[in-house]
Amino acid sequence: MNQFWSDFVKELKPYVPGEQPKEGEFVKLNSNESPYPPSPKAVAAMDKALAKGLELYPEAEATPVRETVAKYYGLTPDQVFVGNGSDESLAHLFNGLFRHNGKKILFPTITYSFYPVYAKLYSIPYTEVPLADDFSIDITPYLAASPDEVCGIIFANPNAPTSIALSLETIERLLKEQPNILVVVDEAYVDFGTQTAISLIQRYPNLMVIQTLSKSRSLAGIRVGFAFAQAELIQALTRVKNSFNSYPIDRVAQAGAIAAFEDEEYFNKTRHMIMASREYLIKEVRGLGFNVLPSAANFIFMSHPKLDATKIASELRERKLLVRHFKQVPIDQFLRVTIGTQENCENLVKALSEIVSKGII
Amino acid sequence: MNQFWSDFVKELKPYVPGEQPKEGEFVKLNSNESPYPPSPKAVAAMDKALAKGLELYPEAEATPVRETVAKYYGLTPDQVFVGNGSDESLAHLFNGLFRHNGKKILFPTITYSFYPVYAKLYSIPYTEVPLADDFSIDITPYLAASPDEVCGIIFANPNAPTSIALSLETIERLLKEQPNILVVVDEAYVDFGTQTAISLIQRYPNLMVIQTLSKSRSLAGIRVGFAFAQAELIQALTRVKNSFNSYPIDRVAQAGAIAAFEDEEYFNKTRHMIMASREYLIKEVRGLGFNVLPSAANFIFMSHPKLDATKIASELRERKLLVRHFKQVPIDQFLRVTIGTQENCENLVKALSEIVSKGII
Repeated sequence: MNQFWSDFVKELKPYVPGEQPKEGEFVKLNSNESPYPPSPKAVAAMDKALAKGLELYPEAEATPVRETVAKYYGLTPDQVFVGNGSDESLAHLFNGLFRHNGKKILFPTITYSFYPVYAKLYSIPYTEVPLADDFSIDITPYLAASPDEVCGIIFANPNAPTSIALSLETIERLLKEQPNILVVVDEAYVDFGTQTAISLIQRYPNLMVIQTLSKSRSLAGIRVGFAFAQAELIQALTRVKNSFNSYPIDRVAQAGAIAAFEDEEYFNKTRHMIMASREYLIKEVRGLGFNVLPSAANFIFMSHPKLDATKIASELRERKLLVRHFKQVPIDQFLRVTIGTQENCENLVKALSEIVSKGII
Repeated sequence: MNQFWSDFVKELKPYVPGEQPKEGEFVKLNSNESPYPPSPKAVAAMDKALAKGLELYPEAEATPVRETVAKYYGLTPDQVFVGNGSDESLAHLFNGLFRHNGKKILFPTITYSFYPVYAKLYSIPYTEVPLADDFSIDITPYLAASPDEVCGIIFANPNAPTSIALSLETIERLLKEQPNILVVVDEAYVDFGTQTAISLIQRYPNLMVIQTLSKSRSLAGIRVGFAFAQAELIQALTRVKNSFNSYPIDRVAQAGAIAAFEDEEYFNKTRHMIMASREYLIKEVRGLGFNVLPSAANFIFMSHPKLDATKIASELRERKLLVRHFKQVPIDQFLRVTIGTQENCENLVKALSEIVSKGII
């Protein structure tokens, strides 16, 4: 091992993102990207941003973006943090709000697999809490946590890769019963069928909500994500950010983010198309004998009682369809499948139908 | 103080970047940006990147960028790290290569003022080493450092805000005499008049070089910076990066970075224009009685024996010319002035001439 590496670097187990194949090689149903391009208005705004000022640093705090998004959600700009993707917002919050001298954080055993990676990066102890038998998040253990031992709770809602959402009432109960524990709700997939917790921010100083432009706004290629919370929590992220990188959001990305939030019509049209294709896909694959968890996301999570998940994934791959398989108990027989275009979904159903017939005979 | 803040957040003293005024309000000579737009080929490449694929994540390791830049410098792609600006590369190197259980790092008292901020963010002890009387970096104390106590040395070359360069021979001497200390040379301004240390990388496993597109490539608005070193050191940064943010460089930025490196003609034209204007400016302001340090950068660092720096800066501001003033001993009587267009320089000379006449009378 290299003598210049800090000790913890040797122990890191970096997050492994979904495969990014060469363009056109596969139908990508493995990274929960949108199958639709971003709003033409967002592209036009980015095009305009290219024409002037690229030699100058961007607005350091992405203030015009924060103003636009704050207005959209009925917040004030000081309740909005903008990061280079939601991943950067998450990293800063782990560092700035979850490092408390030996206190630990809690998250589900099955959730966004970057959480344990951040915890290791910042030497934060953590306990993984099992899901309920139906793969939903059971909040009982979180309600029972002692604030003397636990400083934070984080989960995705809808959860990934299970696709199951927790109700706003349940989240509020947790916030109310654990006022001394910071609760972070990661809403990367919220626009596909569940309620955002942003409406609770004014009443709960222990709530932070994370969102991203990478899913429902079709801008994974641009890298913009958000944290929403009362101003003091946002200040902590801003302090960390300004000790890390003054200008993480470039000029083009800032222009695109603003225009994407302003084009509500396109946003609604594309997310509703995705939700409609999801309902079609769920119905069809259930017809093929798959068990599909109830999805509030732009992906489904499914298993087949008779066919091995590794085998299905590899058969799909041969048919140029890429899906995600986490080989981790108790979800090792499940596949996570991103909702593509309606045509993608129909081709997937056709492929699965072949695989199932072949497999069962 | 908010109960959810990690302790260290309270102690942070974030870096303060140069003021970014509203467009057109001032002539910006305060942030060492280029006065020229980026290569038209870089803009065209970014424009093309907007047309397709923004809904998909970018290449996680910016491999096409690393390949292009490696080829340019005669390195291999595994010797190149790409960060969201050089600031992100610096942050990851402080975290991954400078955190060694109580060992400290050394840097000059007067250098890029982000270094102590990173050190505080990652709880790294440090000692600031005074400059020589002529404001150059005296390497004697660095040569005398014990590797039992010191794990790293970092400085900017040319140094900022002094603008003075260290010779390649001096840097090599340091690398040779301190094989067990990591030496980081931050070359943000290297293209304006000194030699890069990249040529030493194959021979010195204790060298890392940092560069950026924000200065000589006129792309401060886009956020791309580099670390160059032997592959094992780059691997450490990659591990930290992949535990922090999988995709920090967006699709548009990657396209722009590649095209900017490929347009050598435009790069040479603009940097030579800046260097010519610098020589003009130095000659003129020396004629007005200013002391100007020998500059190898796209800025000059100057003081006047009879006029107070705060007063000069404020008089310039009234004339819509923004310069940078660090109110820190022993440079509190100096102003850092970015080289603008030739016209900007001529207007600055005119303004300084008025201020000097008025001040001295």
